[in-house]
Amino acid sequence: MTVQIYWGSGSPFAWRALLAAEIKRVPYESKLLEFSKGDLKTPEFLALNPRGKVPVLRDADFVIGESLAIMSYLDRKQPDPPLFGRTAEDTGRIWVAIEDFDSYLRDPITTINRWLFGDKPRTPEVDEAHGKVMAEIARFEQRIGRGPWLVGNVPSAADIVWFPPMRILVRAGVRAEARARELGLFPFVDVFPNIGAWIARVEALPGYANTFPPHWR
Amino acid sequence: MTVQIYWGSGSPFAWRALLAAEIKRVPYESKLLEFSKGDLKTPEFLALNPRGKVPVLRDADFVIGESLAIMSYLDRKQPDPPLFGRTAEDTGRIWVAIEDFDSYLRDPITTINRWLFGDKPRTPEVDEAHGKVMAEIARFEQRIGRGPWLVGNVPSAADIVWFPPMRILVRAGVRAEARARELGLFPFVDVFPNIGAWIARVEALPGYANTFPPHWR
Repeated sequence: MTVQIYWGSGSPFAWRALLAAEIKRVPYESKLLEFSKGDLKTPEFLALNPRGKVPVLRDADFVIGESLAIMSYLDRKQPDPPLFGRTAEDTGRIWVAIEDFDSYLRDPITTINRWLFGDKPRTPEVDEAHGKVMAEIARFEQRIGRGPWLVGNVPSAADIVWFPPMRILVRAGVRAEARARELGLFPFVDVFPNIGAWIARVEALPGYANTFPPHWR
Repeated sequence: MTVQIYWGSGSPFAWRALLAAEIKRVPYESKLLEFSKGDLKTPEFLALNPRGKVPVLRDADFVIGESLAIMSYLDRKQPDPPLFGRTAEDTGRIWVAIEDFDSYLRDPITTINRWLFGDKPRTPEVDEAHGKVMAEIARFEQRIGRGPWLVGNVPSAADIVWFPPMRILVRAGVRAEARARELGLFPFVDVFPNIGAWIARVEALPGYANTFPPHWR
């Protein structure tokens, strides 16, 4: 199969879809949309995804949005190598790691990223989000110190979900250095060396370069 | 297999785990914990789930928390009937429906439920959450009018994820009638008749009564 993946540079959710396709070696046609040009609000794109969000996957007449849906679809369509584990136990562990991010870190990390790249003063909301982010990342730092990948000996959907937000924080530390230092997040890979080593492992995967946000270069 | 499921009455996430076990007819031992007695903060329970949250599933030595992880584990361990579809396309559609809830409705509906059962005045935050909740539920009302279940002709993980929050809103409309009316949510099954009919279908599933929150009776 050759699918089309619609994505936007630097979207952590779109990044998941690209990493999934690369790790599974699913041939795909890259459809890079530009947020700033309004590409996600055109009638053509809204016909594919009424929410006007990336990622979107198109496989002939079948079209879906939402990153976990795209990863699950690709994994059913071309099962090897599996993104969600070879055993029921690994499947369970991989989903725990995904929910650790989506349920406990996704919202506070969004708040922190907005603050890092903005010019607003710290608010109690930022402080609360900061506390959650530090606790969850410290937990992740410990966990990723126990093996090369989050679950088992191969990269899985869990690594794919965690990678983009962690890599975005590394960049935030460079681009918004003073603010990142104020949060105790910088230099990110010195503060969290296990995460740094794991980021390097992800970046060494074949095809990784195809997923790197073009506007970061 | 016989697993143990730790749950709490009325937790929408724990409810998912029970519904999954009932629909798949996985034998399970029900471990009902009482939030008000501090059952989730005992050393014994924190050893099972350091987050002190339900649901938790135990299968001999294997223990996991997080509802989607538990559903995915059960589905791998005992594949029939599948919770996540028989085709790649249905798998994709089921995950889109799950993410429609978890990404767009979970947070605003939590805000609305806190307000409904509290005594605080409306704030701009409540108004913003209300707008999102009404838009997503109207979308769901349309969608569930197109077939008996969210995806395909059998109940799936998508129905399991959507059912508890919708059923909680029905109850909110009864318990907090004035406030629910103020939000345009009451009587819920009159405002959203397709959702009402679907709720009745879920409630007619074998084993449903075992999942009903005891403190609602």
